[in-house]
Amino acid sequence: MLRIIEVGPRDGLQNEKTPISTQAKLDFIRALGEARLKEIEATSFVSPKWVPQLGDAAELWPQLPPGPLYSALVPNTKGLESALAVGCERIAVFTAASDAFTMKNINKTVAESLDLFQEVISGFRAVHPSGWVRGYVSTAFECPYAGRVDPDQTVIVSQRLIEMGVNEVSIGDTIGAAATNEVHDLTKRLLEAISVEQIAYHFHDTRGTAIANVAAALEHGIDAFDSSAAGLGGCPYAPGAGGNLATEDLVYFLERNGVKTGIDLSKLSRASSVILKELGRPISSKAQAWNLATNLPA
Amino acid sequence: MLRIIEVGPRDGLQNEKTPISTQAKLDFIRALGEARLKEIEATSFVSPKWVPQLGDAAELWPQLPPGPLYSALVPNTKGLESALAVGCERIAVFTAASDAFTMKNINKTVAESLDLFQEVISGFRAVHPSGWVRGYVSTAFECPYAGRVDPDQTVIVSQRLIEMGVNEVSIGDTIGAAATNEVHDLTKRLLEAISVEQIAYHFHDTRGTAIANVAAALEHGIDAFDSSAAGLGGCPYAPGAGGNLATEDLVYFLERNGVKTGIDLSKLSRASSVILKELGRPISSKAQAWNLATNLPA
Repeated sequence: MLRIIEVGPRDGLQNEKTPISTQAKLDFIRALGEARLKEIEATSFVSPKWVPQLGDAAELWPQLPPGPLYSALVPNTKGLESALAVGCERIAVFTAASDAFTMKNINKTVAESLDLFQEVISGFRAVHPSGWVRGYVSTAFECPYAGRVDPDQTVIVSQRLIEMGVNEVSIGDTIGAAATNEVHDLTKRLLEAISVEQIAYHFHDTRGTAIANVAAALEHGIDAFDSSAAGLGGCPYAPGAGGNLATEDLVYFLERNGVKTGIDLSKLSRASSVILKELGRPISSKAQAWNLATNLPA
Repeated sequence: MLRIIEVGPRDGLQNEKTPISTQAKLDFIRALGEARLKEIEATSFVSPKWVPQLGDAAELWPQLPPGPLYSALVPNTKGLESALAVGCERIAVFTAASDAFTMKNINKTVAESLDLFQEVISGFRAVHPSGWVRGYVSTAFECPYAGRVDPDQTVIVSQRLIEMGVNEVSIGDTIGAAATNEVHDLTKRLLEAISVEQIAYHFHDTRGTAIANVAAALEHGIDAFDSSAAGLGGCPYAPGAGGNLATEDLVYFLERNGVKTGIDLSKLSRASSVILKELGRPISSKAQAWNLATNLPA
């Protein structure tokens, strides 16, 4: 069964300047659940100093509507404490394949970040031995500071995360640069090191290649993809430029190819419209725009 | 050598209500040539009554800047006369795989349209025995009036056009509905009937699947793709929804995959900006938006 991991409420909202209230986030998340998204990364237990938008994680978490499986990003042991305090049983840690990227973001090398996450994962497992952990491997193809990334570097970091006990790695094309040949190449290398059910892909659509990259990954049996409602988040350079792969585009593509997702594209498109309006952002997902234009609102 | 057939000046402008002057079209076409597009469908010798936007074909044609190979759509024998009168040596005819589509558009069945085009092609060949003719097969996957199209119907029409003497067929996903499985399936069937160098694909990006479909077609050795600067034309339902596959997205994808196109993406993106401004349209190509945001204007 193909899995879609909805990252809009965390990865999507994280970089948005317009403050979104806890209630509006809950409404958004409820609407995503009603569109039948089954896995949602809901927030990040990060210091409000660093990401004010997600500073309400501890308040939000206990109010999440039942239904979907929720996870949260945990950047450090302090974040873990907050996550555990509200009963979070699914966490994600975030590193990269490029030292230049982690140095700029968290002032640590990739290896140093892994040491930190070993502590986070051990602390989490002590409380939730069978809890779920994912490890993000960002800049898996290209780093905004160091250029092309050696695919073997991505494999090494992924393998190391699996050895540390994460249930899956999410391989991120953080700046949306990759095309299909790279996806074929990296996927083959990853499959020599870890197993297919341990791999999710997190594509960005910055240059319009994300759906083609999904298609390439599917050919290797990869069956877990991250996406963000309306394509929220990532690095939208300009109107029309994409950040994250839009969940709408992913769902349309999969369903048209005969892969059942169970997701209601119309409900999802409308849920996305509401949050876009709150953010004052134009539509950038083609499938969403098409769906809204051809389906009357409920 | 991979071919890109730029259809912006014809297919792109055809459905645009904002009148574009002949001079602005010439400027646009010149800029496309400067971005090193080598094949450009420049206009249509259609009655100004039906398509006022392209009513200046006879005036435009003799002024086309040297460099690229230009072609023009020719809808009937009257259009052929006009095209021949200005020395046009590359023409295109336009039919479909769905009777419902041709009936709505030209009040003829597909078979009746082919009879008409036999006359056009014969008339053209009488003057230019080794001139170039392409045949558009639109609604190759899905028809807006009749739904899914039987792929064998698309093969039959394509084969018939080749028998009638067209040099290539351009297989159109007119409403941008198809996904990769359909492209694999149709391409295999086409290759049983006609040869690979006789096939071009004309994808629309209405639901975000066009680049994935290009990738699928490339796997079968198809090496000719239509696209439109900035994604102009097609059926843009709403801002964010795509019409034609944007040439920018196609060029980025191909180049990143190691396929040399020779096209200057920055010059192309700026050429597209100018025409978008004239049309009062927002950017919808992700690669164009990314390119403009990351490259300073010349």
